[in-house]
Amino acid sequence: MQRFALLGAGFIGSVHAASLAANPDVDFALVYDVDQGRAKALADAHGTRPAADLAEAFDRDAVDAVFIASSTNTHAENLRRAADAGVAALCEKPIDLDLGHAVEVVRYATDRSARAMVNFNRRFDRDYAELKRVVDAGEVGDVELVQLTTRGPQMPPLAYIAVSGGQMRDQTVHFFDLARWISGLDPVEVFAAGATLAEPRLADYGDVDTSVVTLRLPGGALVQIDSARRTGYGYDERIEVLGSAGMVEARRQRAGAVTRYHAGRVVDDGLHAGWFERVRPTYAAALDAFVTALDTGVSPSPSLEDGLRAQAIAEAATRSLASGRTERIEY
Amino acid sequence: MQRFALLGAGFIGSVHAASLAANPDVDFALVYDVDQGRAKALADAHGTRPAADLAEAFDRDAVDAVFIASSTNTHAENLRRAADAGVAALCEKPIDLDLGHAVEVVRYATDRSARAMVNFNRRFDRDYAELKRVVDAGEVGDVELVQLTTRGPQMPPLAYIAVSGGQMRDQTVHFFDLARWISGLDPVEVFAAGATLAEPRLADYGDVDTSVVTLRLPGGALVQIDSARRTGYGYDERIEVLGSAGMVEARRQRAGAVTRYHAGRVVDDGLHAGWFERVRPTYAAALDAFVTALDTGVSPSPSLEDGLRAQAIAEAATRSLASGRTERIEY
Amino acid sequence: MQRFALLGAGFIGSVHAASLAANPDVDFALVYDVDQGRAKALADAHGTRPAADLAEAFDRDAVDAVFIASSTNTHAENLRRAADAGVAALCEKPIDLDLGHAVEVVRYATDRSARAMVNFNRRFDRDYAELKRVVDAGEVGDVELVQLTTRGPQMPPLAYIAVSGGQMRDQTVHFFDLARWISGLDPVEVFAAGATLAEPRLADYGDVDTSVVTLRLPGGALVQIDSARRTGYGYDERIEVLGSAGMVEARRQRAGAVTRYHAGRVVDDGLHAGWFERVRPTYAAALDAFVTALDTGVSPSPSLEDGLRAQAIAEAATRSLASGRTERIEY
Amino acid sequence: MQRFALLGAGFIGSVHAASLAANPDVDFALVYDVDQGRAKALADAHGTRPAADLAEAFDRDAVDAVFIASSTNTHAENLRRAADAGVAALCEKPIDLDLGHAVEVVRYATDRSARAMVNFNRRFDRDYAELKRVVDAGEVGDVELVQLTTRGPQMPPLAYIAVSGGQMRDQTVHFFDLARWISGLDPVEVFAAGATLAEPRLADYGDVDTSVVTLRLPGGALVQIDSARRTGYGYDERIEVLGSAGMVEARRQRAGAVTRYHAGRVVDDGLHAGWFERVRPTYAAALDAFVTALDTGVSPSPSLEDGLRAQAIAEAATRSLASGRTERIEY
Repeated sequence: MQRFALLGAGFIGSVHAASLAANPDVDFALVYDVDQGRAKALADAHGTRPAADLAEAFDRDAVDAVFIASSTNTHAENLRRAADAGVAALCEKPIDLDLGHAVEVVRYATDRSARAMVNFNRRFDRDYAELKRVVDAGEVGDVELVQLTTRGPQMPPLAYIAVSGGQMRDQTVHFFDLARWISGLDPVEVFAAGATLAEPRLADYGDVDTSVVTLRLPGGALVQIDSARRTGYGYDERIEVLGSAGMVEARRQRAGAVTRYHAGRVVDDGLHAGWFERVRPTYAAALDAFVTALDTGVSPSPSLEDGLRAQAIAEAATRSLASGRTERIEY
Repeated sequence: MQRFALLGAGFIGSVHAASLAANPDVDFALVYDVDQGRAKALADAHGTRPAADLAEAFDRDAVDAVFIASSTNTHAENLRRAADAGVAALCEKPIDLDLGHAVEVVRYATDRSARAMVNFNRRFDRDYAELKRVVDAGEVGDVELVQLTTRGPQMPPLAYIAVSGGQMRDQTVHFFDLARWISGLDPVEVFAAGATLAEPRLADYGDVDTSVVTLRLPGGALVQIDSARRTGYGYDERIEVLGSAGMVEARRQRAGAVTRYHAGRVVDDGLHAGWFERVRPTYAAALDAFVTALDTGVSPSPSLEDGLRAQAIAEAATRSLASGRTERIEY
Repeated sequence: MQRFALLGAGFIGSVHAASLAANPDVDFALVYDVDQGRAKALADAHGTRPAADLAEAFDRDAVDAVFIASSTNTHAENLRRAADAGVAALCEKPIDLDLGHAVEVVRYATDRSARAMVNFNRRFDRDYAELKRVVDAGEVGDVELVQLTTRGPQMPPLAYIAVSGGQMRDQTVHFFDLARWISGLDPVEVFAAGATLAEPRLADYGDVDTSVVTLRLPGGALVQIDSARRTGYGYDERIEVLGSAGMVEARRQRAGAVTRYHAGRVVDDGLHAGWFERVRPTYAAALDAFVTALDTGVSPSPSLEDGLRAQAIAEAATRSLASGRTERIEY
Repeated sequence: MQRFALLGAGFIGSVHAASLAANPDVDFALVYDVDQGRAKALADAHGTRPAADLAEAFDRDAVDAVFIASSTNTHAENLRRAADAGVAALCEKPIDLDLGHAVEVVRYATDRSARAMVNFNRRFDRDYAELKRVVDAGEVGDVELVQLTTRGPQMPPLAYIAVSGGQMRDQTVHFFDLARWISGLDPVEVFAAGATLAEPRLADYGDVDTSVVTLRLPGGALVQIDSARRTGYGYDERIEVLGSAGMVEARRQRAGAVTRYHAGRVVDDGLHAGWFERVRPTYAAALDAFVTALDTGVSPSPSLEDGLRAQAIAEAATRSLASGRTERIEY
């Protein structure tokens, strides 16, 4: 039984609170939030209690692990505290929007043998896990071309965009991680092209809402990622992997399995309305994997290093958007 | 090269004319129709010529085979002539609407070793043939439950209904044949329930437009067939076969493979608008099979006997509709 | 907040315990089981406590509702107790395997204005609920033909079969209920044909493992239900409703959305391995609906009367299996 | 009725011969091939006759149009002859592998008001035509991102590769045309990345077998094209268009509609084995369109200019493969 403190009681914190409460191998001990009322309300809803202060959440006598779901700019500091306290950490991405700073804190944590996992929850999607299994089993041969699609239903608010780090660091980064994870390789170079088609004001932020990324893997295999902020038709993710001996695809998921037949057309249920409906089951699965790693003493995965590498790709992709050139990826 | 005379230059005759013209192993020699102008027009369109009279179409020196696509009430007589002349015959179903009469002419033809095939064209559908192959290969084990759906887009005219013999003999009969062919068994009893939901005036003809048939096969396996005259959503056929080791399905065919994604719904291309769009390729394939049988000296299949057996099931099903009871099928 | 006592701590009881524990509008007060150790273990797992005896579970001061998940032969008696105590009841089906007895207890409960719901959980399946919505909205016009498929992955043990009441009362009954619910009509007559193809020893129990049922609805519309105990390919349910203006289908659900492309074949994820994986989300949804009904003071649905009517169809279907004839359904 | 001479009696010539023979608005007058025996054999098979020499095929008194299906290096010269003779021309792509030469001959033909069409047959694919209709009707709003996939089942022989002009000019060029046609826009710049994964010896030819292309359209919309020479799973084409108001996709086509259900997996029919099976119906449709244009006096489309523009994109893409940089497209 792992005793958890949850840091952050906002939307994503409340999602993790439900996972912590439902997980039979977790003792959901504490909730911390800078807004104490919010912490208390969330704790009450799940039969646990708010932490008196941040220090209590890192008290090694009462807590085995923290779930870092606080605001992005506190991730690094909380990771550092966890490393200091000898408390394990499951950390929302990114480690820090500033890659240099992120590298530093990861080095700090690693030097202290911190047990930590970055929450790239899509790795725990049922379909992506099966696709990975198929690839690893060699069922499609050597990976030659990977295609990933990530498209959100509508533009986030500009206030969100302003602090997001841009499409590559905020949205596409999950798929940089998936590309690495599925292929088992670190891309060596990246070309990105983007446009502001859904929201022209993004140009003021040096950001794009629609983009196409090409990655080259060691050995020459290629990866394509298209990202869009606003689809008009719901939340859309898909992955396909072309290999030397076949192809495997994690299809667009539909919200249901009802089909209506009318003259000249067949109408199926649409995609999920938003990202949360689509990926909801991955959160509990990611937590499960983290707890299992702690219970069994293996290193949690994806590691902090995995978090850094996805960020490194996002950095190079962001540079490419600006330069219009292929950029080397530095890890 | 088989020399063919086509009997009948109506709609279905014109379909067969195109198949005869396109088949590289066929010499399309003659067209006969009681309406000589119609025969001439169809012959001209395909670079062949009209027969002077019916006798010419059965002239063994000039013709190897006839394609009987004349009106239903002439099928039996034309089969008899073919048997007399030693000309092979590919005959549209039914052999005769009167089963007794049909039995007689088949016996006549068989006594004369006539080479003849009844044109149950659905057996030559690409998907049904594959489904049959899967079943025969034992991939689903022993057949336990067969489900067939046959639904037309709209009510035929009442004038057609009046001479059609009713839904069982006219529409469902194709699926009685498919059930026999797929299972390799002759059903022993039948229960049918029907209703006049699409066109109440069918009741005046003792006919139904919507029906459900249950067949029992020797050994106990069951067959379900639902037939409807008017769907509102296009032409709909499907078959599934549940066996002891799996299931195989020939799915509803779509007219195309375009998908439109909108908020909350996904819109695919609909089913085919009518039966002809759906089964069109089967006609050429059926002709091919007949020609190949003639070329290689094997018995054409489906045989006239197959035609009789499907009709015998239709007779019993028609009786069951009236009696409300399970009826034995007499072959 | 409704205070619940759970009756029964077996497999299905443990499923309901999880739903009770997770439901924010439920106070999960007590667990009762004839096996006190089992009750305690389940209570402990969900932070609640075992009842000292059955009487405590019906104590109106401590309990608002009971969830009857005890063995089938105790359902009726527990419903009676709930009616006596003024405690609401959510009752697993069937009310009683003996229809006469079931009618009696429902009359008893109704006379006492008991608030009760029979747990036909499939009505709360996301896809079936959507299909029902489409039908009710008139999107397919008048219902003309309903097709339902219910197929389990493997034969239950013979010991289970012996006390199950047979395929109609045990398996198909859920789909009798769905047919009533979807069409809004009570079938007037039934024809059933069955066979023992998967397990010949079923014949010793007067039971079948594969069957086809035809129901006639008032007005003439038809319903087809095929039931199989053992598929070899997983758990299979589907429903389609043909109406005068279109068709709607709740498709076979797949366990995932991964597709593998190889030469000559495309391999998708299979169906769910068992019934529980397939219908799992319906249990929480059914409980939700019951709690909402209690909270808002509306009559819970499906009602005990709905339970009786589905059973009445199952009785007539069972008679038809034996008689080989169409049977009237008596409500 | 348009009188046609067919130039070229090789594989693709024989495909076009069948279309010419079957088209009711075509008088299939002549076949020319440098190999006179091959011309005669093909003519005989379709009831037409071989041309005595090339001049006869351009005799304006006997011929209204030529179908240029001769070897690639003769296309330009035959187009020039057609322009001189006042004979219409349907010309296989490319006009000439050398873009400069192609531009010259198109200018020559245009100056003489030649009626000519370049045979980008995929525009006449049923699904692509419907996708285009959906886009043009505004059903997905403004085009923002187009994704095209073109993958062949196996490596062509190296001898073919050597004279093909490379993947961009030989394979991807069809999809450059489709991208222009669907979006209605001429791409302004291109980035291409490629690799030799299926056949390392391609490197000797400066060619690639696997590639990813990004095009930027005026206004900023993006196009992704992935091309592969060898899939291992059949012939694979698909297109999707993301717009501001939805998305439309022409899905991977399957060779049939049969599904097999087994424990844990569902097996559908695979993709088509080769390109010809997949695109076969487009040839007759393209011919139809050409004939209709001639009959009605409208300009045939796709025009020679369309042919040049697709080639211009292929040129720039080929340069990008070598330079590793984004290249401007010069028309």
